[in-house]
Amino acid sequence: MLFRQLFDAESSTYTYILASAPGREALIIDPVKSQLDQYLRAIRELDLQLVTAIDTHTHADHITALGGLRDETGCVTIMGEYTQAECVSRHVRDEETLSIDGVKLKALYTPGHTDESFSFYLEAPDTPRAVFTGDVLLIRGTGRTDFQGGDPGKSYDSITQRLFTLGDDTLVYPAHDYKGWTVSSIREERLHNPRLANKSRDAYIEIMNNLNLPNPKQMDIAVPANLACGQVRSIA
Amino acid sequence: MLFRQLFDAESSTYTYILASAPGREALIIDPVKSQLDQYLRAIRELDLQLVTAIDTHTHADHITALGGLRDETGCVTIMGEYTQAECVSRHVRDEETLSIDGVKLKALYTPGHTDESFSFYLEAPDTPRAVFTGDVLLIRGTGRTDFQGGDPGKSYDSITQRLFTLGDDTLVYPAHDYKGWTVSSIREERLHNPRLANKSRDAYIEIMNNLNLPNPKQMDIAVPANLACGQVRSIA
Repeated sequence: MLFRQLFDAESSTYTYILASAPGREALIIDPVKSQLDQYLRAIRELDLQLVTAIDTHTHADHITALGGLRDETGCVTIMGEYTQAECVSRHVRDEETLSIDGVKLKALYTPGHTDESFSFYLEAPDTPRAVFTGDVLLIRGTGRTDFQGGDPGKSYDSITQRLFTLGDDTLVYPAHDYKGWTVSSIREERLHNPRLANKSRDAYIEIMNNLNLPNPKQMDIAVPANLACGQVRSIA
Repeated sequence: MLFRQLFDAESSTYTYILASAPGREALIIDPVKSQLDQYLRAIRELDLQLVTAIDTHTHADHITALGGLRDETGCVTIMGEYTQAECVSRHVRDEETLSIDGVKLKALYTPGHTDESFSFYLEAPDTPRAVFTGDVLLIRGTGRTDFQGGDPGKSYDSITQRLFTLGDDTLVYPAHDYKGWTVSSIREERLHNPRLANKSRDAYIEIMNNLNLPNPKQMDIAVPANLACGQVRSIA
């Protein structure tokens, strides 16, 4: 399988390009608008045809490239069934499987960071199992739960009851990392995530309710822009 | 195989941890001193025993963690046979193979960025072929050739006559990337590296001799420090 992880240093966002091989149909997960030219270059140089662009959720910390990629490549844009972004071509349901030229991604509804967050579980031949967790489960961390319908109890349940049941060897590819780590595994997060390892649901809720984080710098711009697939022409 | 790529945002350096599986012996390539605690955390949480730390060459843009890792873990430190760093435990020769618990790395002398740069070619069971290229071959770029015995002709020869013969499917893991790309392949660099694709040796030398780059900010500190494995206590 062809797999490319790309990093946007400004928002510390990871974006993923997947295809069965060079020269084939491809999908992209969580693209960032300011990196659009990088994605188009990678797609062109790998001789790929981008057919699907997915956002795991309505991001508050960067503007999505979904609309830009749709306009440039004609790809289908996808988000989960509970997102309010009416611009996307398709809303996937929990447990629905997307199939792109042999690459299968199973949509898993994993609310908590937001009330409309999905993860995507990769089932591809001859490839280690992997899950793209958006902001729900990060490497040795978890996504904040204090806005956009976030809920620490739902976050705990999504992580421990859905993601942790995918198998210890499953690789974890999040939408962000702020310390230079590129990948983890379910085993690592189960054993070593400081917010989760040996923590009860109540203890996790207590941690998350006391993070006292400032709002993301771009939040007031990014959320409305992302509900329009990043293609709002002017924002008051 | 267990494979971890870590990123130091300050110097845009990629560091690699390799082991046959969690719980086993491991090696690390091109570690950065300021990230020492991150490496020790990853090694501990993956239940690894670090036995080998390698620098591909004497870096000029960051200080190595070789000495720090040796002091903390007792690992063997390795560089190529032409480096002047007398602090390392072992100097590998061209074509020599290092073997760590089933993970085999073949040392390839690839001068050009410096006159003592090595690449390391990964031969591991059930794993795509990969080469760790240091600063000789970057993703859509190449390492500068204007100091530390750098030579654009030797850089061209190392890349085209040694690295490009490893096979198109071989993954390329460099020591740096400045635009958020994490991996490439020999095929991609052969076809799409703007300094190399359809460029003669003379044209490449012309490009490299006219980059007019400023010296790395840390160069006057990093080079002498790295010749002492990063463990110089005070620098005048």
